[in-house]
Amino acid sequence: MTETRRTVRLKPKAEARAIRHGFPWVYADELVTDRRTQALEPGTLAVLEDGERRALGLVTVNVKSKIIARMLDRDPEAVIDEAWFATRLRCALDMRERLFDAPFYRLVHAEADGLPGVVIDRFGDVAVIQPNAAWAEAHLDVLAAALRAVTGVGTIIKNGTGRARGLEGLAEETAVLSGGIDAPVPVRMNGATYMADVLGGQKTGLFFDQRPNHAFAARLAKGARVLDVFTHVGGFALAALAGGAESALAVDASAPALALAAEGAKATGVADRFSTRQGDAFDVLETLGREGAQFDLVICDPPAFAPAKPALEAGLRAYERIARLAAPLVAPGGYLVLCSCSHAADLTAFRNASARGIGRGGRRAQVIHTGFAGPDHPLLPQLAESGYLKAVFFRLD
Amino acid sequence: MTETRRTVRLKPKAEARAIRHGFPWVYADELVTDRRTQALEPGTLAVLEDGERRALGLVTVNVKSKIIARMLDRDPEAVIDEAWFATRLRCALDMRERLFDAPFYRLVHAEADGLPGVVIDRFGDVAVIQPNAAWAEAHLDVLAAALRAVTGVGTIIKNGTGRARGLEGLAEETAVLSGGIDAPVPVRMNGATYMADVLGGQKTGLFFDQRPNHAFAARLAKGARVLDVFTHVGGFALAALAGGAESALAVDASAPALALAAEGAKATGVADRFSTRQGDAFDVLETLGREGAQFDLVICDPPAFAPAKPALEAGLRAYERIARLAAPLVAPGGYLVLCSCSHAADLTAFRNASARGIGRGGRRAQVIHTGFAGPDHPLLPQLAESGYLKAVFFRLD
Repeated sequence: MTETRRTVRLKPKAEARAIRHGFPWVYADELVTDRRTQALEPGTLAVLEDGERRALGLVTVNVKSKIIARMLDRDPEAVIDEAWFATRLRCALDMRERLFDAPFYRLVHAEADGLPGVVIDRFGDVAVIQPNAAWAEAHLDVLAAALRAVTGVGTIIKNGTGRARGLEGLAEETAVLSGGIDAPVPVRMNGATYMADVLGGQKTGLFFDQRPNHAFAARLAKGARVLDVFTHVGGFALAALAGGAESALAVDASAPALALAAEGAKATGVADRFSTRQGDAFDVLETLGREGAQFDLVICDPPAFAPAKPALEAGLRAYERIARLAAPLVAPGGYLVLCSCSHAADLTAFRNASARGIGRGGRRAQVIHTGFAGPDHPLLPQLAESGYLKAVFFRLD
Repeated sequence: MTETRRTVRLKPKAEARAIRHGFPWVYADELVTDRRTQALEPGTLAVLEDGERRALGLVTVNVKSKIIARMLDRDPEAVIDEAWFATRLRCALDMRERLFDAPFYRLVHAEADGLPGVVIDRFGDVAVIQPNAAWAEAHLDVLAAALRAVTGVGTIIKNGTGRARGLEGLAEETAVLSGGIDAPVPVRMNGATYMADVLGGQKTGLFFDQRPNHAFAARLAKGARVLDVFTHVGGFALAALAGGAESALAVDASAPALALAAEGAKATGVADRFSTRQGDAFDVLETLGREGAQFDLVICDPPAFAPAKPALEAGLRAYERIARLAAPLVAPGGYLVLCSCSHAADLTAFRNASARGIGRGGRRAQVIHTGFAGPDHPLLPQLAESGYLKAVFFRLD
């Protein structure tokens, strides 16, 4: 194989050490981008060499991306075929099967599972692939074949939406690659049943990442009046009701999401304790404040207000505002759960913004728990700073 | 009351804002320490004023401590009597009763529970108080009376050991304040039974803080060969066995701790799968490495290698060494759990040291989970940086 392989080379001054120690990316300014490299089709496989022409491994190259090369295999002679994908998938599956009783989880979480830019969520017999890097788009058929072979799923959906594909120069496209599906998939988690719209929903239809934080909230929920803002398909609300909440009010801007949440409430057997309010979260929080509403457990799980560095300051102000509006709605001695899925806002910055907002909302707080994404969202230690999801559990005075 | 109360005053340039926003401490260089203040008995109550003589609250003063004043109550006229203690204890108890099925938990975690420097662990009918600040020592009788009234515990032990008391100028002393006890107390957690030596053991006899991390390790343990280094009274090992581990080898330097661990294994009904090895952890790790021993789950939960800033560099080297020695003992695809209870080593520094050690041990890793102390160890948001306990769960290649 190797004689026919392209090579790309780090600039003489670029630091190969991080890559040798497991860092999976080469940035555009670290690579020699001569005319030959510039001409490579996005997703081309190539052997990465250091400045002294020593091979570092097999990478995928995309000159349209800031991340110009991603490490696929430390072995420069690796062959990226169905068997190669099957080995990676089996390794990922082994960990999920150890941790989860039922086949509902993120099966592949990109770089950390050895498949750069590839996300696969599994909903029982259905798998949704997000090929967020050009090489994955090019290898989609063989990846899907390996996925079928390793997991036995009958239905495979390609979800080609989202910001990451744009950065790779990929078009939006969603398609059924095999099998078929005609209704939301019921997903059992933390004693609740969620309805995942794997074809038309946000991302892959359900956010598995919040599962452990849903579980912790459910422990606080017994007998509680719960407010779940940015509920999506009922994330925290249904888990809280399954955990014994007296009532839950779920708020979201999306009517289709709320309809799925209501369907989930029915499937969970808690529809009599579940209500929804459609609207902008800030508006609804302000309205509830004017109404003098009180809840024992309030959760706010907004979309990323600070997805990238330029948005950091405005994002932190938005998190502070959420906290300021939510804090007065918490009954004395009650709990406030504030979440961030912003890459750019680290835990300290997010917690400080939240604590400031709580203070400006006239309350004092303890932090009783900090949760991240569940273990089906592993991270490379070299990229662990970028752990995007944070859930901070406050108890208010 | 207030007319007879002492006052202490912030220096004109000292920043009162942080205190107004909930920061609970005044450092020695922020307070006017005239002869009158210097003469105050450690633990004296006083009204704290800002530079303009506006009252900020009621504090306890200890001129022998770097933390010269600790906020007791935002109300400068608060009366620190049994009813005051009972209110704080009831508030702390309410959260623990919501979160835990049985009365085994840290009931009071100092500042965050409104009782600066006071730690109370509860073992069913037994409570162990650590009065780690001078004011608490002075109010111990009334605190114990309130504790009895609120919780109904029959036995109260004062544990006056540990580093914190030294910093406050307090002597070491352990005593039974009420009731009696003549054997280790069995404590049920995560399906295992631990034996807590509440009179003669380390700290209050058992470390409740690792409970959620024990639980996560137990999820990884089914059918696994487990190595638990620095096991104390069997912390991770017994939880792993209760979770279905095939075998567990528990290592500790302390023979009495290992004896309690073995007693716990019997009480848990897993003694046939449990073994111990007494010795220095580094030596045992090296020996196991020479023996070529392999485990599916290895946990290292050492004492604080970097309790304070001057020890940080040496501490991080020690964490790296632990990781380097432990990584080769993990079977392919197995799990390595590395813990730090060092205040000075933050999560990023600790994780990086651990990842470096794993790399030097010849392995690559994913991070699948990061855990902190359980919710019975709340933090003030203003002090949340100091969250001391970190448990990072790695999966190795």
